[in-house]
Amino acid sequence: MFTTVAIQGQEASFHDIAAHNYFGKDIGLVPCDTFAETFQALQAGKADCAVVAIENSLYGSINEVYDLLLKHKFWIVGEVYLRIEQCLVGFPGASIKEIQEVHSQREALAQCEEYLDAALPSASRYENHDTAGSVADIKKWNDPTKAAIASSAAATLHGMEVLAHEIETHKQNYTRFVILNKTRQDNPKANKLSLILRMGGDHKPGALHHALGAFAERDISLSLIHSRPVIGRAWHYLFYIDAGCGLADHKLQHALAYLEAHDHKATILGSYVSGR
Amino acid sequence: MFTTVAIQGQEASFHDIAAHNYFGKDIGLVPCDTFAETFQALQAGKADCAVVAIENSLYGSINEVYDLLLKHKFWIVGEVYLRIEQCLVGFPGASIKEIQEVHSQREALAQCEEYLDAALPSASRYENHDTAGSVADIKKWNDPTKAAIASSAAATLHGMEVLAHEIETHKQNYTRFVILNKTRQDNPKANKLSLILRMGGDHKPGALHHALGAFAERDISLSLIHSRPVIGRAWHYLFYIDAGCGLADHKLQHALAYLEAHDHKATILGSYVSGR
Repeated sequence: MFTTVAIQGQEASFHDIAAHNYFGKDIGLVPCDTFAETFQALQAGKADCAVVAIENSLYGSINEVYDLLLKHKFWIVGEVYLRIEQCLVGFPGASIKEIQEVHSQREALAQCEEYLDAALPSASRYENHDTAGSVADIKKWNDPTKAAIASSAAATLHGMEVLAHEIETHKQNYTRFVILNKTRQDNPKANKLSLILRMGGDHKPGALHHALGAFAERDISLSLIHSRPVIGRAWHYLFYIDAGCGLADHKLQHALAYLEAHDHKATILGSYVSGR
Repeated sequence: MFTTVAIQGQEASFHDIAAHNYFGKDIGLVPCDTFAETFQALQAGKADCAVVAIENSLYGSINEVYDLLLKHKFWIVGEVYLRIEQCLVGFPGASIKEIQEVHSQREALAQCEEYLDAALPSASRYENHDTAGSVADIKKWNDPTKAAIASSAAATLHGMEVLAHEIETHKQNYTRFVILNKTRQDNPKANKLSLILRMGGDHKPGALHHALGAFAERDISLSLIHSRPVIGRAWHYLFYIDAGCGLADHKLQHALAYLEAHDHKATILGSYVSGR
């Protein structure tokens, strides 16, 4: 019996590649159109777990996913980093010069803007909610003047051709994916922890500085600090934080006790082994 | 001679309303399709200043604008807060029950999702880059089964009708706009400062805690802390910070001197009078 995994996108999307990197070959894919649907699939028990992109090294944190993590009470059990290599995918034998339309996800189009401006200045760009789905569309339309931006795996899957490799502007293009479970899992080997921090004494100068002291004074490194507004309370913020040790670590237990003693509220999102 | 103002969007868009709130009646509007074009218009001298949305109380910081602020060397000279009231706009006499298509900006559609799900469950939703522009489209198409989501000002401007008021899910829906100039302006009445902070000793635990101490130890309140990745250096961050005093304030001068002495780099984006 294999693990079923809900992802945003379809087969050969970057989410699919990330899921296979984490789980290995034999997984049952539950493709979803949006992040909200992916979370709902896990909530409804349609999948054992979900894999969602949470951060990109160029684009930054994916706010929609952070907001969904706040809404659903899931547990992060792992993470995967993936180098995102974008390809221009078209019909076998198609000529780049004759491409008139480029279809892909909004972010993928933005990542390849310099290439598109230089190589295909007069081609129109169209947004789709999935990179691999754009390749499926190209095949369906059966028109060699249309191309997609997607992984080379998507080209192979649909029998299409990679017309140009690594067309993204910045090669330091990594996406971090997290693996979500419905139930809490305590991993004794965990060396990373994600949490949501709500500061006590909201508008007091230095509240965040004070709360971060819980970690700094114990030499706990923070690899992420991301602010989000509190919905319904204008200009109030909460902070998503990634710390460099697991939940079982004594230093971390002391930091959490310090936060609680000072009215800062910490909600643990997961304790897991860091990726790569 | 009136001030010319570059905005993202067209007449009766929320950017236009924000620009009039700040400058009063007589301004010359320079409408732009995207944020990047708005910045370019100011850079090229096509407008005296620009008004851009930077943060929404529900959606959070608008990353694209923060990245453009980093790229261009403009100066923030002021800010405006605007309550965003979304309306369903259609043909005069149109019936909500017969609406089959709703057109608007991606964010506006998302803000009104609950209303659309309840009142127009079978209507298709289409993305446009401007709310007011969607109303212009509706008028052009001359089809009473099509509606837009926009301000009531956009309905009035184009002779269309507001079919439903305040259809946004959360009424605490405010957007903060900043006013940008090409040249630095020193306002002695300034009580707010925006800056970009790059930490010294990048990966040292507690670097952010240490840098924030510059403000906390001088009782300077911070109304915003927003992290963004450093393009080209995976998983390195810089922080956008808003502080509660102007550049001329002695406390702030000391805080900046402390940052400099400890290898933290602060880039001032502007010193101005806080809005509302």
